[in-house]
This record gives sequence, structure tokens and C-alpha cells, in this order.
Amino acid sequence: MNRSMIRYVLGHVLKIEGALLLLPCLVAAFYREREGLYYLAVAAICLVLGYLMTHKKPKNNVFYMKEGCVATTLSWVALSFFGCLPFWFSGEIPSFTDSLFETISGFTTTGASILSDVEALSHTSLLWRSFTHWIGGMGVLVFLLAIIPMSGGSHINLMRAESPGPSVGKLVPKLKSSARILYVIYFGMTVLELLLLLAGKMPFFDALCTSFGTAGTGGFGIKNDSIGSYTPYLQWVTTIFMILFGVNFNAYYFILFRQVKRALRMEEVRYYFLIIAASTGIIFISLMQNAMKAADALRHSAFQVASIITTTGFSTADFDLWSQTSKTVLVFLMFIGACAGSTGGGIKVSRIVILLKTVKKEMNSYLHPKSIQKINFEDKPVEHEVVRAVNVYFITFVVLFSASIFLLSLEGKDLITNFTAVAATINNIGPGLALVGPTQNFGIFSTGSKFVLMFDMLAGRLELFPLLILFHPGIIKEFLPGRPSRKRKN
Amino acid sequence: MNRSMIRYVLGHVLKIEGALLLLPCLVAAFYREREGLYYLAVAAICLVLGYLMTHKKPKNNVFYMKEGCVATTLSWVALSFFGCLPFWFSGEIPSFTDSLFETISGFTTTGASILSDVEALSHTSLLWRSFTHWIGGMGVLVFLLAIIPMSGGSHINLMRAESPGPSVGKLVPKLKSSARILYVIYFGMTVLELLLLLAGKMPFFDALCTSFGTAGTGGFGIKNDSIGSYTPYLQWVTTIFMILFGVNFNAYYFILFRQVKRALRMEEVRYYFLIIAASTGIIFISLMQNAMKAADALRHSAFQVASIITTTGFSTADFDLWSQTSKTVLVFLMFIGACAGSTGGGIKVSRIVILLKTVKKEMNSYLHPKSIQKINFEDKPVEHEVVRAVNVYFITFVVLFSASIFLLSLEGKDLITNFTAVAATINNIGPGLALVGPTQNFGIFSTGSKFVLMFDMLAGRLELFPLLILFHPGIIKEFLPGRPSRKRKN
Repeated sequence: MNRSMIRYVLGHVLKIEGALLLLPCLVAAFYREREGLYYLAVAAICLVLGYLMTHKKPKNNVFYMKEGCVATTLSWVALSFFGCLPFWFSGEIPSFTDSLFETISGFTTTGASILSDVEALSHTSLLWRSFTHWIGGMGVLVFLLAIIPMSGGSHINLMRAESPGPSVGKLVPKLKSSARILYVIYFGMTVLELLLLLAGKMPFFDALCTSFGTAGTGGFGIKNDSIGSYTPYLQWVTTIFMILFGVNFNAYYFILFRQVKRALRMEEVRYYFLIIAASTGIIFISLMQNAMKAADALRHSAFQVASIITTTGFSTADFDLWSQTSKTVLVFLMFIGACAGSTGGGIKVSRIVILLKTVKKEMNSYLHPKSIQKINFEDKPVEHEVVRAVNVYFITFVVLFSASIFLLSLEGKDLITNFTAVAATINNIGPGLALVGPTQNFGIFSTGSKFVLMFDMLAGRLELFPLLILFHPGIIKEFLPGRPSRKRKN
Repeated sequence: MNRSMIRYVLGHVLKIEGALLLLPCLVAAFYREREGLYYLAVAAICLVLGYLMTHKKPKNNVFYMKEGCVATTLSWVALSFFGCLPFWFSGEIPSFTDSLFETISGFTTTGASILSDVEALSHTSLLWRSFTHWIGGMGVLVFLLAIIPMSGGSHINLMRAESPGPSVGKLVPKLKSSARILYVIYFGMTVLELLLLLAGKMPFFDALCTSFGTAGTGGFGIKNDSIGSYTPYLQWVTTIFMILFGVNFNAYYFILFRQVKRALRMEEVRYYFLIIAASTGIIFISLMQNAMKAADALRHSAFQVASIITTTGFSTADFDLWSQTSKTVLVFLMFIGACAGSTGGGIKVSRIVILLKTVKKEMNSYLHPKSIQKINFEDKPVEHEVVRAVNVYFITFVVLFSASIFLLSLEGKDLITNFTAVAATINNIGPGLALVGPTQNFGIFSTGSKFVLMFDMLAGRLELFPLLILFHPGIIKEFLPGRPSRKRKN
């Protein structure tokens, strides 16, 4: 294990966090809120620590898959730990556990909150909360790759550990350029949403926070009723941008380089829109049966479907009160999630499509046992390795899911609450049903359960394995004190 | 598609059913119940139809996988259709749908009932209900293979389609002998249970029905409170036999041929007992916290764990009232199920173990990406093909499960009811939670939902694919009228 490289990466991440913490400081200066001082102090700590950790460049910059996983996971833990300190120091969230929960929920773009009254927070903290979504959405290590010159060609392992989806592709041959292009698209679309929200007369502060929350598919609202009190126009803008940020960013890359046809042919994106249309249709019909006006029913159904499938988690209505059919559809969407290569969470449309295709293939093999069947996706055959990885991902997901539900059940809450709380965190959505429904919050859980859910949020965002292998005996051994890091032939 | 062979197999199945229907006729004669006449009539119909269908031996006895699947599925549908007629004709179950539901539930060893008052049934019908469990437990086609001389070596395809587990092994080189040995063990153990129940002073009729229900891991009780009103001794005998019938029958084969050590080394069986012990422990502790006496807590927890993991579905207590932890554990057990090669349902312990081992393998591959990892099970490496099949099985299971929940949700019942109703039928258990809890029944569902659940019961018993491929366009085409069956190169 190349520990000095991991230290080096972590140091850079802390420097970036220190810099990012200056944005809430600016907001504090504007609104003259004394909470800004805590943000300034933590920013200083991060910058000093980061400087110390990156002062000495490591000699050996070889970086394998396991180093990539460990560095990524520790980066996310460090980000969350330092990011939660201002909430705690300022006393706006009195408990450390709650502060950490809120921050992990922010960075992982979950948006599950332990606060019952968000409107009581300072502007500074509200902005930081929403800003964590934006940072976590595209990923801080992708950002690192975009700006820091790092030698040693294995940094794809960092990007691989942090990027969502079954297989990581570089947009262009150079990783650094790929990362930059992604951030340019991300930044540009966020600004576009901001402008459209401002055009609908949303206050600038609200528009900024909402754009951050939408772009990262996070879902922290700055009002107690989330997006419910804004005008239909603003809700529609949010709906459309939630859907857009759930699209595989490769599509935007194609459009940017005038390959619109290629973007339109993307199989994952097509299925994504198909699922959105079908789900919206079903919920729309269900809401109409409850005598809602057509315009309202369409707005609420489209908003909620977009919010859940992209794993954003904003709400305009208390869908816990909707029909069983609507709730069941929403629960399915929680698991499907957005496209790979987007800022959304969940299992991802591409994985679901590949899984369904394996079922179809199996059925064919019963009819024609001797013919060799291939799975095609995005117009080319899927490598066996990818199919295997998708299968294992799904199984691991179910195992972690079940274990989490069991741990939560020790607290005695009902199955729906436990089931949807885990679903909402592991898929990085935010609200669930029953006691964690859209008008409720996660403050009801004990400290132990909160840590289980924090683990799930991180596991969901990092797509399981980078986090889970930290608990592999082989990795733990390498970190035990008194054992020098050895080079291994892997 | 070799249609004449399928007809021939179906004919034999009907003849067997006709013969089996004579057992309730005997009971009717003993208790002088006029319901027996309906059983006699249906037996006659089955025998005549069966005779007509088997009169002409097919010239071509080639039998591929697809023929095996189609013949097996149609056999089960035919069995259920004719088996339900006496309930309907006699008016004991006035609705045809309900009669069919009850019979499919019987043959698939599910034990989910639409009856609110089973004690109102005649002895004849009570016996037939329990007897269907016994017939379905080991499988009627396995029985067919055991007794009917069939030429053409591909009959393993019949056994494969009907036998539970990820890979079908013959006990001895000759299929017919394997099938016979299985039935001898099955019959012997059923008689043993019967004797032990009689020794505990259970009335003969009750003991016979309970033994049938236990052996097939079915779960139809003949009392409204299932097994609740019997003495602790009788409940313990039932507990032990439920567990024994959930063991892979290969273990008994080994014991029978004095290879006890080999039986004890069986990995699946060890995990099976481990899961039973752990689950019983957790529920025992939970019941003790509710101030139950230790002896009662142990009896109820062991009984319920045995009943659910073996997918029998008897109950001694209303576990819907137990703690969330206990209920969560029971829900997990519903999915795990019994051993492959037993009469139990569910996903099967061996599949779960293989799935978990693929997760472990994946973690190792992150640490040592270049080394080749193998999965071992039962002391030998698992073939790639089996791992793939297990993965696909699990995915297909989840897909069918989700689709069923969605269809049930259209009725507007709560998620827990829908979720556990599907879990209880697809895993062939019987009772679920909430509205389908152990003191409730499945009569609450609409006709449409009942058909969904019937489909799930059959899919669960036949392990998905033999049933599902009936809906494959390639198979449907071959059955469309006006198209002669063609020989295909598969």
C-alpha cells in the first residue's frame, strides 16, 4: 500500500475543501452573520493541514486499484468530518453525530436531513449545506484530477472509485481533459438553471441553493416544505433540470462536440426517459382519480418522478399520502436511479438494463441451449467482465441493504420506515415513506442507526466496493501500526 | 417442439392424479361423507383422459430442455386444474378461482389459504388439501420417472425442470433409481413423523394431515389456529421434522449408504443449521424481552424459524404481533428458504451461499486484481455456468417479485401486505404479515391479484424459468394453431 500517495491525495482534498469553505464565509460577510467565523476557522485548519500533507511529494507515485479505493474513501470521510465542524462549532446543529449526518448527507447528495426546522439555520449554513451537494455531485477527486498536475499514469483508479456507473470511460484520451470537460458542462448547466430560476423571480439566494441542490441531485431544501411554496414555473424549471442532471454526461459531451445524433442514440438515456414517462403517466392517472386538477397532477407527478429517479429528493407534495400504486412506483424508482455518468445515485439505469438483458438471454438459452448468446448495450457487445461486475454489484447491494434493515430493526421502528430509510440513503435520495416521509426527518433515529445510515450514504455514493474493501482483512492488516507498507506483486 | 411426447407425459400425470384422488375417496367412505362422490368422479375423468392421452406411444421420444420445461409446467397446471374440481363441484369452496388458488397453493407446497374457517371443510377435502402438499413436495414428475418406464435418455430434463436447486445431480447413475431412492426416503420419513405424532396422542387423521403438510413443507393446517392448539411435544415433533424435510435429501442418501461423515461435511446443510440456530437465538432473546417464559419462547421461536425457513408456513403464534426485529428476521428467512434438493422453497441456502461467495471474491479481486479467484462450494470449485445461472436466477426473482408487487399495488392494499403476500407465495411459504398474517387469509384479494399470486406460487415451485419461458415468443409461436411442430437444430 502506497501510504504516502494516499496522504498526498488527502492533503490536496483538504486544501480544496479549505478553499471551498471560503464561499460560505463570503455569504456570512454579505448577511453579516457571525457563523462565518467558524467557517473561516475550519477553512484555515483545512488549508494548514492540507499544506503540511502535500508539502513533501511522494517519491513513489504508483497507484493501484486498492490505493484508489482507500484514497477515495478516506477523502470522502475527511471531507465530511471537516465539513461538519462549522455546524457543530456554531451550535446550529448541537450534536456532533447530527452534524456529521447532515454533512455526509450533503456530500453524498442524499439530502436526508435530521433538522425539523431548516429555516432556523443561518444563510451561511444553508448555503454550505446546498454547496456540499454541488461539490459531491461531480466528485471532489474528479475535480482534483482536473486541476492538480499529478504524474504516474494510474490516476484512472481515483476516478474509477468515485465515478458512478458500471464501467468508467474517459471522454478524451487524457484523463485531465476529461475531468475538465465534465466540470465545464456541470458548471455551465448550473449557471443556466440559476438564470432560469432568477427569470422566474426566485430570490438570488434561494436560486443559488436550489441550483446547487438540483445540479448535485442532492435535495436539501432551504424551506421546511422543500420546493412546495414556489410557483409552478419554478417547480417546472427544477423538474427539467433534475431530469437533465440525471442524464449520462457523455450525452452532453456529444452534443457539445456536435454529435447530436450520437447523443440521441444512447440506449441508457432512451430507457431513462422511457421510465420517466411511464412512471409519470401512472402517477398522473392515480392523482387524477383522486380528483386533482390535471395541471397540478401533471406537475406533481413529473416533479416527484424526476426527484426520485434522479435521487434528488426535493418534494412539492407529501407523496406519503398518495395511493399505494404511486408509492410503489416511487419505491421502484428509488432503486433504479439515474444514468451512469450523471450526478444521480441509485443502481443506475444502465445496470438495470444489463440485468434485464441477462434475464432475456437466459430465457433464450432455454430455447436454443447450444447457440451462443451475446448481450448488446449501447450498440456493442457487453464484455463478460462488465456483466459479472454488474451482477456482483447488485448482489452486494442487496446484502448491504438487508444488513442495514436488520440493524435498524433493532430500534423497533416499522418495516416501511426502515426499508425506505435504507433505500433513501443507500440510493442517495433523501426522503422515504412513513416516519421518514417528505414532511418528516431522520432525527428520529438513535445514534447507532444514524451511523448505519451514514455508512449507507457513503457506500451508495462510492458504489459499494471502495468503501467496503476498507473492512477487508487484507487492507486492515496493512494499516495496523508497526507494519511498514510493503510492495506487493499485484 | 415434440408435442406428442408432451401429450404423453401429461397423460401419465393425469393417470397418477386419478389414482391419487382415490385416497380422499377412501377417507370419504370411512367418514361416510358424500363429498367423496365428487372426488370419485374427478378421479374417473382423470383416468379416462390419461388413458386416452397415453394410448398411443409417441414415435419420436427426443426430449430437449424446452420440452422438459413445457411438459413440467403444463403438468403442474393440469394437476392443479383437475385437483381443484372436487372443491368446486362439492361447493365446499364456492368460487372456481378460490378452488384453483387453494389447490395451486397445495401442490406448490405454499399453504396460503383463502379459507377463513378450515374447520368447516369435510374430512375428505381436508385430507386432499394436505395430500396435495405431499404430492407436490417431492414432485409428481420425479414420481413419474420413478415408476414409468420411459425410453430416450433425455428425461433428466423433466427432473431438472421440477427439482429445486442450482444444479441437479443424480444420486446414482440411473435416473430411475435416483427418483426411487428419493421417494423411499420421503415416504420413510413421513411414516416416522406420523408414528411420533401418534405417540404424542394426536388423533390419526390430524397426524396424517400434519405429516403430509410437514413432509411437503406445505403448511395447510386442519385447524383454524394451525398447530397452536396441540401440545408442546407435538409442536416440537413438527418443528424437528420441518427442519429435517428442509435438508438436502442427498444428506439422507449418504446416511442411508453409511457415509455419515460425508453427510455431516455438506456445506449447504451446515449453513442451513447455522442460520436456523442464529435466527432462533435472535427471536428467542426478543421474545424473552417481552416477558415470555423461556420454554415457551424457545418453542415458539424454534417453531416459527423452522416453519418459515423451510417455507412450510405452519404457525403456533401470531408472529405479526412480535417485535420488529423478529419480524425482520422472519422476512429474511422467507427469502433464504431451505436447502436445494429438499421439499422446501425459497431462493435456497446453496444459492445464497454462492451469491455471498461471489461478493467475497469481488472484494479479493480489488486487492489482487491480477490473481484468478475461484469460488469453492461443497469442497469443489463451482463451475462458471452455475455461478452465472445463480446470478440470473436471483435477478429474475427480483424482477418477477417487483412486477407482482406492482400489480398487487393496483388494488390499494398497504405495502407490507403486498410485499409479504408476494414473498409468501413466490417462496411457497403461506402466511405473510399484516393483512396476510398467520391469523388472516388470502381471501381478501381480488380475482386479478389471486391470479398474480397463483402465478407466483407456480413460478416459485418450478424455480422461475420452466414457467416463464412459456411466455417466450419462440415458444408461443410453436403452439399457435395451424403451424406444425418443426424440428429445430438446437
